[in-house]
Amino acid sequence: MRFVIAAGHTETARIEGISAAGADTDALVHTPSADAEIISYGWLVQAPAVPVSPTGCPTPAVITRAVRECLEFDTLVLDAGLARPTGAPAVSLGASPGRDIRESIAVPDAEDIIDTTRTIGRSLPDETIYIGETIPGGTTTALGVLRALGVEGSVSSSLSTNPLAIKERVVTDGLAASDLEVGGAAGQPHQAVRQMGDPVLAALFGLTSGALASDTDVILAGGTQLLAVGALLRHADRTVPLELATTQFVADDDTATLRDTAATLDLSVTVTDPGFEASDHVAMARYVAGEAKEGVGMGGALALADRSATSMATVRERIVTVYDRLLA
Amino acid sequence: MRFVIAAGHTETARIEGISAAGADTDALVHTPSADAEIISYGWLVQAPAVPVSPTGCPTPAVITRAVRECLEFDTLVLDAGLARPTGAPAVSLGASPGRDIRESIAVPDAEDIIDTTRTIGRSLPDETIYIGETIPGGTTTALGVLRALGVEGSVSSSLSTNPLAIKERVVTDGLAASDLEVGGAAGQPHQAVRQMGDPVLAALFGLTSGALASDTDVILAGGTQLLAVGALLRHADRTVPLELATTQFVADDDTATLRDTAATLDLSVTVTDPGFEASDHVAMARYVAGEAKEGVGMGGALALADRSATSMATVRERIVTVYDRLLA
Repeated sequence: MRFVIAAGHTETARIEGISAAGADTDALVHTPSADAEIISYGWLVQAPAVPVSPTGCPTPAVITRAVRECLEFDTLVLDAGLARPTGAPAVSLGASPGRDIRESIAVPDAEDIIDTTRTIGRSLPDETIYIGETIPGGTTTALGVLRALGVEGSVSSSLSTNPLAIKERVVTDGLAASDLEVGGAAGQPHQAVRQMGDPVLAALFGLTSGALASDTDVILAGGTQLLAVGALLRHADRTVPLELATTQFVADDDTATLRDTAATLDLSVTVTDPGFEASDHVAMARYVAGEAKEGVGMGGALALADRSATSMATVRERIVTVYDRLLA
Repeated sequence: MRFVIAAGHTETARIEGISAAGADTDALVHTPSADAEIISYGWLVQAPAVPVSPTGCPTPAVITRAVRECLEFDTLVLDAGLARPTGAPAVSLGASPGRDIRESIAVPDAEDIIDTTRTIGRSLPDETIYIGETIPGGTTTALGVLRALGVEGSVSSSLSTNPLAIKERVVTDGLAASDLEVGGAAGQPHQAVRQMGDPVLAALFGLTSGALASDTDVILAGGTQLLAVGALLRHADRTVPLELATTQFVADDDTATLRDTAATLDLSVTVTDPGFEASDHVAMARYVAGEAKEGVGMGGALALADRSATSMATVRERIVTVYDRLLA
């Protein structure tokens, strides 16, 4: 088993009010690079600060790292267009950060990214991979991809109040700039991700295509962004069984349509409740208050913990340990 | 414990007759990228072929990987100027491949590489790191650095007949092009590596400086190239105890002066004999015949095996497994 995280940037994240994946829009360009270090080391190396939301909720990388410290699984980070260097080991895909989806082409190098990641996915020696993401603004690009493919539904948010109106407007503007109608890229996943997606979606789509082609099982570890990866696969005529493993927080988000959209895409959904109500620690209490919800493979990591001999209480203790190490 | 491999390229490797780290000079530019994949996965991902010497001796990455499969230690690959992409996860140092040391400046970005790796070394959470290298032509740049620092001695070779006359001539030409006398960069390790070294030496020097500054123990895992790293550290006034862990094959190489030079630099030397005479498999027999000798951390990996509960017979069996998986 290997846990793969694609990390990258899209200029879409700089649109005011769209993302909580950083204390402010200047900070969020560092978030994926920092998340990669937290997952890899449990420690920062080159990144300037631990990513926190504007209200202090730490990145879900803390949760995934905590589970990793309990279960000791292998990780693999893909540099899918990082905006800042990372001290974590990452496979360079030669990808550039994505553009604002309100431009006509969001991911100019999408074909190269898909080609490279398909080769990597085909060659991975693992029986099973879990794939997750870290890219601020990613739910908006995910919505863009869903709309381009003509998949109905709505996406979640790292903010406690989902700025869906902004996201819908950005996607509408993006479709117009791409000269696309809703569903205009149905059956054309490469076009959908190139015009309306981001480099992380391109990387996860390519990696999964390659992995499935060589009989590696793939678990989509995340929320509505991984739902978009599932949609891209289904529109590439991939009919294999696929599982989406996410958190209670995304599944309970009434503004998103995770379960319904997953059903229309024939994705089985695994929802894990980490029991954060049992703690008043900020690293867990902000999730209970509706922030962050998911990301950096958190839902998949929690599913792994749930399937192991490690109790959720042990995971919660470890979250405090990781948080204290990073932020105390 | 973490096993760090710096992987990179120097144009010095293209000088005819200087390196056996590839079937020919066209092949050797791929060697470090392939070695990184072998260490990380035990499998090739993007690299076109398993590196072999002109006579079919497989890369020492096979040995290090085999030990890793027995002991399951963590690895970290640094991209210290790779000439070709790798499918392995690597920390990007933003380094360019090194130039031919017969130019005046061999590593134009040496200062940046040292700065970046020092930060990484200082931040690594490990108590102990083993550091190794993969860079064809690396013993020649190592000789260049030793001469620039004024350290007496000679270097080993991946060829069974050490082309020392070529190396000495290249270094003499390089010193002249750099306007340096023998010992002209004594006490100036940055200058020595910038004018006469390669990006891998710069990275390992920087990483070690940072690691030692934060009380991480460092084992120099390799032969005369790691001796050059030790020399750079001593000329940076680092007086801490340092261990060089290498193979019987380098220690027995009469054309090199590993033990004597290590003694003058106050490095303790650990030599491990993997008992390859017990096998007639090509992955071991070519070593007994004097080829390859060391590289990609092999000596350090064997020392780790020797210090563990794993027997050398188990390691030898695993070498055959890894070889068959890669080349059969």
